[in-house]
Amino acid sequence: MSLVVQKYGGTSVGTVDRIKHIAERIAAVAHDNHHIVVVVSAMNDETDRLMTLAHEISAQPDERELDLLLSSGERTTIALVAMMLKEMGVKARSFTGRQVGIFTNNAHTKARIERVAADRITTALEQNLVPIVAGFQGINEQSDVTTLGRGGSDLTAIALAASLHADRCEIYTDVDGVYTADPRIVPMARRLDRISYEEMLEMASLGAKVLQDRAVVFAANHQVRIVVKSSFSEAPGTEVIQEHREMERNAVSGVTYDRNQAKVTLIGVPDTPGIAARIFEPVAQADIIVDMIIQNVGQDAMTDISFTVPKDDVPKAIEVMNCVSQEIHAKRVEVVQDIAKVSLVGVGMRAHSGVAAKMFVIMANEGINIMMISTSEIKISCVIEEKHVEAAVKLLHREFELDKASR
Amino acid sequence: MSLVVQKYGGTSVGTVDRIKHIAERIAAVAHDNHHIVVVVSAMNDETDRLMTLAHEISAQPDERELDLLLSSGERTTIALVAMMLKEMGVKARSFTGRQVGIFTNNAHTKARIERVAADRITTALEQNLVPIVAGFQGINEQSDVTTLGRGGSDLTAIALAASLHADRCEIYTDVDGVYTADPRIVPMARRLDRISYEEMLEMASLGAKVLQDRAVVFAANHQVRIVVKSSFSEAPGTEVIQEHREMERNAVSGVTYDRNQAKVTLIGVPDTPGIAARIFEPVAQADIIVDMIIQNVGQDAMTDISFTVPKDDVPKAIEVMNCVSQEIHAKRVEVVQDIAKVSLVGVGMRAHSGVAAKMFVIMANEGINIMMISTSEIKISCVIEEKHVEAAVKLLHREFELDKASR
Repeated sequence: MSLVVQKYGGTSVGTVDRIKHIAERIAAVAHDNHHIVVVVSAMNDETDRLMTLAHEISAQPDERELDLLLSSGERTTIALVAMMLKEMGVKARSFTGRQVGIFTNNAHTKARIERVAADRITTALEQNLVPIVAGFQGINEQSDVTTLGRGGSDLTAIALAASLHADRCEIYTDVDGVYTADPRIVPMARRLDRISYEEMLEMASLGAKVLQDRAVVFAANHQVRIVVKSSFSEAPGTEVIQEHREMERNAVSGVTYDRNQAKVTLIGVPDTPGIAARIFEPVAQADIIVDMIIQNVGQDAMTDISFTVPKDDVPKAIEVMNCVSQEIHAKRVEVVQDIAKVSLVGVGMRAHSGVAAKMFVIMANEGINIMMISTSEIKISCVIEEKHVEAAVKLLHREFELDKASR
Repeated sequence: MSLVVQKYGGTSVGTVDRIKHIAERIAAVAHDNHHIVVVVSAMNDETDRLMTLAHEISAQPDERELDLLLSSGERTTIALVAMMLKEMGVKARSFTGRQVGIFTNNAHTKARIERVAADRITTALEQNLVPIVAGFQGINEQSDVTTLGRGGSDLTAIALAASLHADRCEIYTDVDGVYTADPRIVPMARRLDRISYEEMLEMASLGAKVLQDRAVVFAANHQVRIVVKSSFSEAPGTEVIQEHREMERNAVSGVTYDRNQAKVTLIGVPDTPGIAARIFEPVAQADIIVDMIIQNVGQDAMTDISFTVPKDDVPKAIEVMNCVSQEIHAKRVEVVQDIAKVSLVGVGMRAHSGVAAKMFVIMANEGINIMMISTSEIKISCVIEEKHVEAAVKLLHREFELDKASR
């Protein structure tokens, strides 16, 4: 008997009618004699509604309380989905993060899963129940509610799929797979039939908001086979699997962008050994994820250090940097918010050279200034002015012939 | 150092502004160096919103899922109140029913508290934190969420006050105390300065919706001193305490009414010994609370048995009665919904006789037909047609001179 974990995002459970629709999908799988575990997010807009309440109270709400607040969104959904299934004659039962046994560390609002117990889920499956699991939430060792960060329900689904040795994990969303570029910007963008974990990881972390990046890492580490599909169509979706040779035929698989970045610069930093550690250790301790780092060539034993952080973390980053700046006697802190990152991704880059050079030439010919660059084996990213982002994505998609390739 | 438990109802936490208002009250107590524990309900309308969602899915939603669904309302409030207090510089921390350790039996939607652990609350108080506790909710031994029934947050507050040996339990609501009658119907109604547990219990169970009846029983059993106050004024409120002699000066303390009753009649019941048990045992097993019971004088070894139940329980009662009716070979089941109960309450009835007779005369003179009667030592209740309820309350308030008495 096969076991599938299905995860439905906020738009898929946004109204009672949509809940009915997905309940019918779930019922069909259950009636086919497959074991199925369902993970759901909060109803569309519910997280925003709760977040607005919190921000009416405080500009920086207490994170423990914020986690408790936000976790009620998924609790509402699991109750409603389980009710709907029971109303349709399917034996279903809701489980909160705590009831599943999603144990996390104590990093409120972006906790890491440390252990998945899932005893109650296994028992429920043995009783032929369909477990409906609240995504996004866990508990720490004090038994306080934690949340797994934006898109954390993906991680819940994949961690459960790994823990239960599921045959696959289907991620239902409002798009029907992973595209060569954002179809809202590039109408010629193509859906990819399959993609490697690494490519998916780069796409996710670069802002193609199909899957949470930590979820992809977890899936790769535990070899969980993911299928990204639309809950509104029967299209086959995109499989996320291990890399294989055939994937390397094309140099580039997709072009992505990320507007959710800001650039923080420490100006007038004494250029002494160990200075980077003194800057970035407190940043890490504040749980701020730094993406790119650039250190300018120093003059007169002074240098400037720039790095990018998610826009949400800017207030925290400024706080930390003001401290650091005093401590190391830097001149001042500067923040630039209107930047964006454009990236090319593809496992084919391992086999094809010259991708980066071609990218820089294309951008230069259009007069788009590149502020920062970072590269990995399968990715090249450039930070540019935000106003150029759409033009850059269109241009790169066309010049790398992503509309023509076949995979 | 004194310890007070404060409970705020749905209207008191209905908006962010109101949350700010009560947070200021709480902060004032905390700054006065009193220990304080706060219990809150769901925001006004939130429970209705969730209930509407559930009823869009099912006419009789699964009760385990309903409990989980509804419990998210209080979780939202505790997070917001704790955030607000922290924003104001008060050290506060939220606790769910599970985190407090409110252990209940398994009767979903109307669970009974079996044990209150409260270790985390005691620890929090020792750390000079203000615990903000979710009312209305507990967990059963399977660690599933249960709820305590309508008004269950009162019970949470009083059970916690008992468990912590608090000096008093202040119940904040949208009225500033207990009145001799509903002021919306009787403008001359007076606020009572104090009232006995028994009177309060009768008032609560008779539909004066100031305090949940089970909460009052719990308070009486554990001698918890209650003060009912308005969160919108500084008025002293009504104290609910043990009965004492002075209270007996007046025969009647108040007149109350309850529109939330329906009459179920089993017609053509074989008049044999033990028949009542065969009818009411399944009713009790279905967790339906029966209020009054009347058995008509039998003819030809046949009789009719009528009883009243809360209107919410009518569908369940009909289901049970249809079963019972077949089993005992009764003729049919009849339900009348447009009834109401009008009651006089007063510990003074122990000392004053003739209250019942006077009540019946007053009603008869106005042509109000009495369908059922029940009495206790300190209460007389009459079931009448719903259309007469306001006239009856006004009349009784005037004739028993409740506007004049002083207590």
